[in-house]
Amino acid sequence: MKKLRRSARLVDMTQHLLARPHKLIPLTFFAEQYGSAKSSISEDLSIIKELFETEGVGLLKTVAGAAGGVKYIPKVSRDEAVLIMKEQCQTLESPGRLLPGGYLYMADLLGNPEELSRIGKIFASIFADSGAELVMTVESKGIPLAYATAQYLNIPVVIVRRYSKVTDGSVVSINYVSGSSKRIQTMSLARRSMPELSKVLIIDDFMKAGGTVRGMMDLLEEFKTEVVGVGVLMETANVEERLVDEYISLLSMTEVDIRDKEIRLELGNYFFK
Amino acid sequence: MKKLRRSARLVDMTQHLLARPHKLIPLTFFAEQYGSAKSSISEDLSIIKELFETEGVGLLKTVAGAAGGVKYIPKVSRDEAVLIMKEQCQTLESPGRLLPGGYLYMADLLGNPEELSRIGKIFASIFADSGAELVMTVESKGIPLAYATAQYLNIPVVIVRRYSKVTDGSVVSINYVSGSSKRIQTMSLARRSMPELSKVLIIDDFMKAGGTVRGMMDLLEEFKTEVVGVGVLMETANVEERLVDEYISLLSMTEVDIRDKEIRLELGNYFFK
Repeated sequence: MKKLRRSARLVDMTQHLLARPHKLIPLTFFAEQYGSAKSSISEDLSIIKELFETEGVGLLKTVAGAAGGVKYIPKVSRDEAVLIMKEQCQTLESPGRLLPGGYLYMADLLGNPEELSRIGKIFASIFADSGAELVMTVESKGIPLAYATAQYLNIPVVIVRRYSKVTDGSVVSINYVSGSSKRIQTMSLARRSMPELSKVLIIDDFMKAGGTVRGMMDLLEEFKTEVVGVGVLMETANVEERLVDEYISLLSMTEVDIRDKEIRLELGNYFFK
Repeated sequence: MKKLRRSARLVDMTQHLLARPHKLIPLTFFAEQYGSAKSSISEDLSIIKELFETEGVGLLKTVAGAAGGVKYIPKVSRDEAVLIMKEQCQTLESPGRLLPGGYLYMADLLGNPEELSRIGKIFASIFADSGAELVMTVESKGIPLAYATAQYLNIPVVIVRRYSKVTDGSVVSINYVSGSSKRIQTMSLARRSMPELSKVLIIDDFMKAGGTVRGMMDLLEEFKTEVVGVGVLMETANVEERLVDEYISLLSMTEVDIRDKEIRLELGNYFFK
């Protein structure tokens, strides 16, 4: 690459860092790339760092030493997360969204890349230091959200199937009891999709009693993995017996009046911890 | 926001544009945001434009006039796409990936945000001028790929269900015949998820005879929508009767030797058009 001026370097470094969250990039990489002195690169990075922080893009962490470099950590402040999720509350509280069984229609939200990106970034901020190596979810509503989170953590997604698929090869299956409907269901995970001893972050869109998340945790035990976090977009409040103890929710459905089609949403437990 | 210097402006404009592909941003927005003259903003944009083009990030299109502004169009050149997809061929040709029924294990690729992003960007480049307003796919393997594509086109994703779900509300269902197995199957789409008269881009991970894609097209007719494109990551070559005429594939599986576990992949039809 030809020698670049500072202005062009700033643009390129910005796009390079944004595309590789959580990845340590040695300063020498940039220095060689642009034919610049390391001191110039450091100055460039301090400009980017300041802007990323004031604009709420995230943090730039510099690691010193021979194995050092710079890392972009996507970060949404709690205050900003409050604003984003309050906006979602307003959208989701509209009466027409209530479906039979007390479910909430969220398919439009879960299909909107811009909104998903904002929510995935919040999850990635919360679990930035969890050490997660994989994001896991169960098909199929939670997939886009898990993917959005994984993008900001820059780690793979693994999908648990509710219906065994021929294209998965050999799978490990378990039966689990859905916490709310008490029905016995099956979920399975392709053997080769989950390396043993992985650290796993579970992400899902909706949690009632937590039977599905509990099932995923049980399934993970078969793979000798460690669950380092559980994040759900929405939980229902007032559940008699929750099957999962530790989890983060961003929204909580506190009231559902099926006759009058009224829904009340509040911020989830993350905001009260 | 306080008045920014050029260096900080460049970083902020870069991140702002990258986060909003295909969206027209008026120059006055930036000018007001940074307290700068429009002429300075234009100079900034020409620096970003040049870098985006030389580095293969994409195009910056400037629209003149009162309703004008600047738009970031993610773009992967055909040459770069060839390199990316040849790399995928190599990864996917490993013998252990062949599963019963002639399927190919691709779950790891379809769960890797970085790879998905690269492939989604290729699809978004190909269909950049299609006018697509929605990306549609069928659950569940194709979801991450559809989402990656939709991100770069900055449009929503709509997911067709193979199993009707209580959380979808009222749905429209059709029966279709799987082209390869000749079995009758059902797919359904939530009524409210698809506005009538929409322009739809269909994205899927795998296509044999094309029965699933054909089914999606039939389903879309019920919604009075127009299909403006069909993109599949991989097709199987040598299919006797293809149920879909116009589609783009990025990879083609030309040979499957189940006994010797040999797979031969080639570039898809996009590269030969």
